[in-house]
Amino acid sequence: MVSTIEWTPAGVVMIDQRKLPAETTFKVCRDPEDVADAIRTMVIRGAPAIGCAAAMGVALGVQQADGEDIDGQVDQVCDLLASTRPTAVNLFWAIERMRTLYRSLRSSGVEIGEIRKRMADEACRVLDEDIAANRALGVHGANLMPEGATVMTHCNAGALATGGYGTALGVIRAAVEGGNAVTVLANETRPFMQGSRLTAWELQQDDIPVTLVTDSMAGHMMQRGYVQAVVVGADRIAGNGDVANKIGTYSVAVLAKENGIPFYVAAPTSTVDLSLASGQEIPIEERATDEVTQIRGHQIAPEETRVRNPAFDVTPNRYVAAIVTEQGIARDPYRPALERLVAQANAPKGDAD
Amino acid sequence: MVSTIEWTPAGVVMIDQRKLPAETTFKVCRDPEDVADAIRTMVIRGAPAIGCAAAMGVALGVQQADGEDIDGQVDQVCDLLASTRPTAVNLFWAIERMRTLYRSLRSSGVEIGEIRKRMADEACRVLDEDIAANRALGVHGANLMPEGATVMTHCNAGALATGGYGTALGVIRAAVEGGNAVTVLANETRPFMQGSRLTAWELQQDDIPVTLVTDSMAGHMMQRGYVQAVVVGADRIAGNGDVANKIGTYSVAVLAKENGIPFYVAAPTSTVDLSLASGQEIPIEERATDEVTQIRGHQIAPEETRVRNPAFDVTPNRYVAAIVTEQGIARDPYRPALERLVAQANAPKGDAD
Repeated sequence: MVSTIEWTPAGVVMIDQRKLPAETTFKVCRDPEDVADAIRTMVIRGAPAIGCAAAMGVALGVQQADGEDIDGQVDQVCDLLASTRPTAVNLFWAIERMRTLYRSLRSSGVEIGEIRKRMADEACRVLDEDIAANRALGVHGANLMPEGATVMTHCNAGALATGGYGTALGVIRAAVEGGNAVTVLANETRPFMQGSRLTAWELQQDDIPVTLVTDSMAGHMMQRGYVQAVVVGADRIAGNGDVANKIGTYSVAVLAKENGIPFYVAAPTSTVDLSLASGQEIPIEERATDEVTQIRGHQIAPEETRVRNPAFDVTPNRYVAAIVTEQGIARDPYRPALERLVAQANAPKGDAD
Repeated sequence: MVSTIEWTPAGVVMIDQRKLPAETTFKVCRDPEDVADAIRTMVIRGAPAIGCAAAMGVALGVQQADGEDIDGQVDQVCDLLASTRPTAVNLFWAIERMRTLYRSLRSSGVEIGEIRKRMADEACRVLDEDIAANRALGVHGANLMPEGATVMTHCNAGALATGGYGTALGVIRAAVEGGNAVTVLANETRPFMQGSRLTAWELQQDDIPVTLVTDSMAGHMMQRGYVQAVVVGADRIAGNGDVANKIGTYSVAVLAKENGIPFYVAAPTSTVDLSLASGQEIPIEERATDEVTQIRGHQIAPEETRVRNPAFDVTPNRYVAAIVTEQGIARDPYRPALERLVAQANAPKGDAD
């Protein structure tokens, strides 16, 4: 499996996801500005992976903060990283986790050299915990996959979208590791092509059978009986179980329901935002028009074409059969179920059931 | 408005739709083989336009047939043209119309020079009648468009897909000509990009406001209230009102119904195939995999990726609010309504109500 992001002595190293699968190149981020730029331009993408990157960005900032106003500099780094993308809540979750630790260490009078070390350790822990969460939710989700099913997924919620292993693709991997020979139907996921570029590539690396279709084919494939389950990741899950995820997810969910196919969401509890009453409150990023009018730099539409480019959509909870987290599975009614799982995740070790 | 196809002394001239909007070039088809190749490779596409091309291909064949077995040569030309694409029924409808006229002229003992002239005239009449049908159905359909509506369309059912004026875009044009300032939301329509390449370009030529989205955005735009009606074309309409159209249409129809938005189909009666009990009987063309793995010749997915590429899907009649033809509007129950409209179209002039 590919390594999405690593903390190294040279800096934070990320595989450049804009160039896959044609080129396997790596970007070395030497300061928080590099990390912010990598998130904004989608060198790294996927809510949990963005969380890991942000944690490492804050840690980098603490390594480099110096002089009289260290605290102000760290705050600036946190604000910079928080400004990169609006929808994935893991970004803000990771920044808050890092900022809270930093403040606690500072207020405890820990000396700066030790703080630098502990912040780097914490960023690596965010990454390790994300991988562990993926493995745990993978096992929970694998139990939901029908034997030998063809499972549709949208976008890339794989190793590349997380610290490693994947959320939706973590469920697939866990099913395969458990002896269930599922196969994957991957939607190409315009405009950024995460399905054709990343999911197809990532699954091929692991020898998991994958067939690619355009987003426009998803409904037809369901209608003709080729799909037994859908599993996707999430960028933010509201307290009521509404799910923000890559644009096109809502369409897939409606089509799944119409065709009697269960639609599952796989995400760590760090993706759950209990502060939101519903998905209507989730900010939806609108990205640059040339993602739609061009493909890989090649102009498709007439130059002056007006474009909408929302990067995410919101799937209301009524379309969601279950939300699979590392703490277990939430079903309707979602608020009490999600509250319980998040509390479990936040409980001091040993308290969780 | 662009001219999609013309009968000229040099041959059948078509705008090359594979190269739009980057290049406006024309292909001159000098024999029926050229026409068959143009249909197969999508130099010309769109069910009514394919019908016009096939009619001209047969006429070209009759111009060039010579020697002892003229009838056999004409039959071969008809068979060749019928083998090009399986889904759009207008192709077979046009070939049968031309073949029936040819046989009737031959059995009446008309001399071959006169037959050649009459077949060329008939092919031009197929084109002229298609444009007239589009204008007529446009007026019927325009009455269904809410005032100032944003109307979603999928693929290109415009002047380029027909003899001229368009079916779905004919409805739009007629609405605009009638003083209703509708605007268009065009789905890009992967894999062949008819929406971004052709619909956006064609509407811009006519100064009709158009906004482009990827297919994955269609559901989100409906959910957020940006769409008041959907209108699409058709490649074949079964007797029960099930509609085969460009892949992705079924998804759009399901999403429209889920969001309480009327979904209209605009097509001439030559697209109705009363011989079919339901859309399940419509053959669905599967095209080459590189249409999905590449875009405009640029590789997107890993080289060896397995692909499905159905070019059409079938929308069951329960999702269709109305079918708009040049003879009037059909609504559920569709079979009697479509039978009446087809009978009207086939009635000798003066008999139609």
